[in-house]
Amino acid sequence: MTKTRVGWIGAGVIGGSCAARLLDAQYPLVVSTRTRAKAEPLLQKGAQWADSPADVAKRSDVVFSCVGYPRDVREVFFGERGVLAGWADVPPNERCDKIYVDMTTSAPDLAEEIYRAARDHGFAALDAPVSGGDVGARNGTLSIMIGGDENVRERIAPILQVLGTNIRQAGPAGAGQRTKMSNQILIAGTMIGVCEALLYAYKAGLDLENVLASVSTGAAGSWSLSNYGPRILKGDYAPGFYVEHFIKDMGLALADAEALGLSLPGLALVRQLYVALAAQGGSRKGTQALIQALAALSNVDAFQN
Amino acid sequence: MTKTRVGWIGAGVIGGSCAARLLDAQYPLVVSTRTRAKAEPLLQKGAQWADSPADVAKRSDVVFSCVGYPRDVREVFFGERGVLAGWADVPPNERCDKIYVDMTTSAPDLAEEIYRAARDHGFAALDAPVSGGDVGARNGTLSIMIGGDENVRERIAPILQVLGTNIRQAGPAGAGQRTKMSNQILIAGTMIGVCEALLYAYKAGLDLENVLASVSTGAAGSWSLSNYGPRILKGDYAPGFYVEHFIKDMGLALADAEALGLSLPGLALVRQLYVALAAQGGSRKGTQALIQALAALSNVDAFQN
Repeated sequence: MTKTRVGWIGAGVIGGSCAARLLDAQYPLVVSTRTRAKAEPLLQKGAQWADSPADVAKRSDVVFSCVGYPRDVREVFFGERGVLAGWADVPPNERCDKIYVDMTTSAPDLAEEIYRAARDHGFAALDAPVSGGDVGARNGTLSIMIGGDENVRERIAPILQVLGTNIRQAGPAGAGQRTKMSNQILIAGTMIGVCEALLYAYKAGLDLENVLASVSTGAAGSWSLSNYGPRILKGDYAPGFYVEHFIKDMGLALADAEALGLSLPGLALVRQLYVALAAQGGSRKGTQALIQALAALSNVDAFQN
Repeated sequence: MTKTRVGWIGAGVIGGSCAARLLDAQYPLVVSTRTRAKAEPLLQKGAQWADSPADVAKRSDVVFSCVGYPRDVREVFFGERGVLAGWADVPPNERCDKIYVDMTTSAPDLAEEIYRAARDHGFAALDAPVSGGDVGARNGTLSIMIGGDENVRERIAPILQVLGTNIRQAGPAGAGQRTKMSNQILIAGTMIGVCEALLYAYKAGLDLENVLASVSTGAAGSWSLSNYGPRILKGDYAPGFYVEHFIKDMGLALADAEALGLSLPGLALVRQLYVALAAQGGSRKGTQALIQALAALSNVDAFQN
């Protein structure tokens, strides 16, 4: 059985690991990235290089993208050298086999726009943002939240199963993105709680290891506390997830919520504190560095390495 | 071996269950509550009635209190008919055997004041707030966060072990309360995240069960999401923990943080939203009812039963 020809656009922390898994699973893979150096590990594993998303699309049946911002997604799909342009010459009877899958955490309304444009041209599109981070991407244990048509998802199920374990149809186009937005809203809440609680405990003179041991396993427990709490205590602000990406995600959630007529005061406040953290030079730190912005706010010297 | 004579003041959800466990463990127990009816289940299990905290103290070696607000704790310990008054006639050579343990979530500086006053009179005092809720109290699986002298905690270890499983010395007087404050700050963060995320998901037209299944087990996961998320979806706003008590706890944490020179903007915002919820009639609902205040804020009809 011939394996589906897969195209891959973007080779960052998540996308690079996903593409590598597909190569390991013997999928023929064509890759394009803005900076060719980022694709080198994939090319060495046998991926073919393409100069543009259009070129990727010409040589692939299923095209994945995992890029940075919604503007990048728009360029990848709608741009002059984008996926849609690359598929311009596909004969009508072959169009239904072409599927574009965006794994970027991006704007829900852009996902809807891409879905409609793809459909109008005879192609298919899914929004498929993920959670699970670098570790989940490497191990193929991502959660994948899918918006779009279920039968399209079913057609690429073997590919998705190489990448993730918790693969769920979230609903129609945009619903994958909106489920991911819910995920990020939850994280915003847990992160402000974790950072304010630890900063308070520090100022109160408590033994922070002891505080973590007291509160992590009960009603105050969270993945963020168990994973970022110990890193904060070690002064480790290395990125698991970049501050600048979280600011983007929270902005997308606030914009979509506002469009839906919904005020999210907690999320808005947390985002502003992350904006302050970025202003203080923290854009490329991990999200746990929020405690540094809170410490700076009250002129606390600790947590500043 | 004669068991320690235990006094118990307050028989609410937590205190009542704790006292019942001590009776089951064959501790002689004297109880006093403001409303005698609340003590009835304990009296039927063999507890002795006392008319006041002073009367409890006269007939006990270790006196526990688990009441509502710091003002109640102050009255219980310092009041005309309080514990200190009840121990006024204890001879100097017997004073070191008298221990007062406050399990109320109360003000850290009041805990310090009680500790000093007890010590100045030759008695001992611990602050020992708990987490684990009604279920933990019934099953003896509470987390107990202890401030005060370690050797005092060790002397009452057999009693504490009837009540909890995660019993930790938090530090000197007040540190038990401050560890509990850290716990409540964490919960404030997770609750705003849970409620904003579910409200957004609802407005976005997502299947909420599906959203919970997608996000609960990953980086967005928390005890609050796993426990309150399903209740919110069922429209169950019955109290596991009362809104009015959470408002009190957050107020104590903010006041102590302010005294320490620390701004906690996330906690302050969450508390204001709970104040709004109380103003809308939600004081005696469970903390998961925060979603009702957020829904009301944006004029969303759902979540209002």
